[in-house]
Parts: sequence; C-alpha cells; structure tokens
Amino acid sequence: MIKYPTTKKRYQRPRIGKQNRGMALEKLIDASNQHYRESGRAVIHKKPTPVQIVNVDYPERARAKITEAYYRRPSTTDYNGIYKGRYIDFDVKETHHETSYALKNIHQHQIEHLRSVHRHGGIAFLLIRVAAEDAIFLLPFETLEKFLERAKTGRKSMTLEEIAANGYIVRETLAPRIDYLEAVDRYIKGQA
Amino acid sequence: MIKYPTTKKRYQRPRIGKQNRGMALEKLIDASNQHYRESGRAVIHKKPTPVQIVNVDYPERARAKITEAYYRRPSTTDYNGIYKGRYIDFDVKETHHETSYALKNIHQHQIEHLRSVHRHGGIAFLLIRVAAEDAIFLLPFETLEKFLERAKTGRKSMTLEEIAANGYIVRETLAPRIDYLEAVDRYIKGQA
Repeated sequence: MIKYPTTKKRYQRPRIGKQNRGMALEKLIDASNQHYRESGRAVIHKKPTPVQIVNVDYPERARAKITEAYYRRPSTTDYNGIYKGRYIDFDVKETHHETSYALKNIHQHQIEHLRSVHRHGGIAFLLIRVAAEDAIFLLPFETLEKFLERAKTGRKSMTLEEIAANGYIVRETLAPRIDYLEAVDRYIKGQA
Repeated sequence: MIKYPTTKKRYQRPRIGKQNRGMALEKLIDASNQHYRESGRAVIHKKPTPVQIVNVDYPERARAKITEAYYRRPSTTDYNGIYKGRYIDFDVKETHHETSYALKNIHQHQIEHLRSVHRHGGIAFLLIRVAAEDAIFLLPFETLEKFLERAKTGRKSMTLEEIAANGYIVRETLAPRIDYLEAVDRYIKGQA
C-alpha cells in the first residue's frame, strides 16, 4: 500500500472505477483522446504500431493483402500531439509489481526521445498505471531523469511510493474516461 | 513553366539537384529529419504506416510473424514533431501534372486534422513536390483553406502558378537534403 504524501488538504485518492477496471490503459487513453479532440481541448493521437512489411499480395478485385510482416521496435513514444499550443509527447507503462517499477522497462530510445522533446520545450512524461493500487500517475520526464541518474550508481527502480510522491495522479471521470490533461495542467502549473 | 512572382531581389529558383532527382520525396524528408534531430534543430518523425493486423503466427524460437494484415487509411498526416518549441504537423504530396494540382488528392480527414492543428496554434502545412518544375513548395494550411473555400463554388484545383505564388520554395542543401525548416522560418516570419 502506498503511503501518500500528506498535503494541507487531505486528498482522497481516486481509483480506477469498476467500469474502467480491466479495460486496457491504452483503450482508456484512446477514448479520452477522442473526447479531447471532439471537444476541441487537444489534438492527440496514438501512433500506429510500426510494422516491417515483407510481402504483399494484390488479388484481383480485392484490396492488397499483407502476407508477411514483422513488428518493429518503435523509435519514439506512442502518443503525441498539441495541447494549449504546446507540443505534448508521452508513453504509457503498466506495472503489476507490488512495490516498485524497474527502469529497464523503459527503452533507451524512448528515454532519448522524451529527453529531446523536453529539451525542445515540449511537455514530456510517462503515464504509469500501478495495478496494485488501481491508480494512474503522470510522471514528468525531469523526474524520471532523476531516477535514471540515481540508477547509474544505485537503485535500478522507482518504488511505488516514489512514483506517487513525484507524479501527478490521473483522475477518472465520465468523459473523458481518464482526464490526464488535468494532471498535465497541474504539472505545467508547477513548472511555471 | 511557372511564371514566378517578381520580387525586388531577383530570385533564382532552386531545382532538385541531380543527386536528389529520382529520390522519393519521402526519403529526402526522412534524411532531412534525421539531420535535424542529430543537429538538435528539431524533433520530427514520420508516423508508421497504419496496418490492421488480422493474423499472427508465433513460431517456436522465432519472432512473431504477421501472416494477414491490411493497409488502413491514416487518420492524420504523416509527419509531426516539435520545432522551436512549437508543434509542427504536415503531409507530403507529389504531382506530375503539368499545370495544376487537384484538391481531391488531399483526403478529407487530413484537411480536418491540419485545420485542428492550425486552430490549436500549431504549424500546419503541406509539402508539395511539383515534378514538372523539379521544385518543392511549402503551402501553409491557411492558404490551402482559401483554395478549398474557392472550390466550393469554383475551380477544384490549384494551378502550379498559385502554388508557387502562395507557397514557400524549399531549398535543397547538402545537409539537410531539403531544408524545409528554413521555409518554415520564412512562413512563421510572415505570420508574426
């Protein structure tokens, strides 16, 4: 159980409600992005899964059929777009571990991509679902960077307490399903 | 032959040089984007081609093999990223027509996507290669919008002269192969 940092105002930790439980985080985000786009709040899309196409059949009177292809490792994160005039970029992680999240689960190319985005003035972060807590956190890239720095000489993971203490909880609402941009707002406010 | 608008300073129209001729525009852009990323000028990537995966084999001791899949229509443009702290988004078109470019070649969902990006304050445009002229132009979304507006009651295409007069020529250099961000700079300057 995470010991949540006590703040002046006691904060009721939101949980993934019954209707969202079991729904893959990716689906929740896709539905939320659709809501954000339709309501004009942001334009954020998931990038397609990169596939290396080796062979394609062109049957008569039918559309092209790919008959041999392989998954490729993505060179960036899965989501990007524009929010409040700013470039936004993030990836999604999920952990079923009870106490910590191993940093090796974040691929080097994703770290480098988020670092570049951050340096160029974009909003860069991870959305991490902690299954044991039924909670989703936004972890800003600069926080992740501190843990990566520590990992060079010390601990190779972030404890769930550290994620909760340094991240921004993502609230569940009816529409959007998860309001991660509200967490982005709190994060940006802290930056300014 | 396009009659280029005469400006105070006589402008030598650049052409696609021999080393780039025949190289697909997409490859030129990919190479340029790599150069932009490596030199820290911008972080811009091409999105993967969207594919609907129907069947996957998991052979023992070998990586997953996709055995049935189909191309899907992209819901956005092909390129996006961050430049000078701003969100940038564009698609690439190529025409071999001698006198004009038909607007029906630009898919409705791409137009809507670029319009959303533009409204949210992003830099939205098309890169159009005019093969007959060996030239590439950056056409800002707001210019495209004017031609789309005209198409409602009149002409359903843009003449090559109109593209040249309203667009920004993209210069070819050694590195990057095509310096389209330099054209973006001129476009942004005109906006300010």
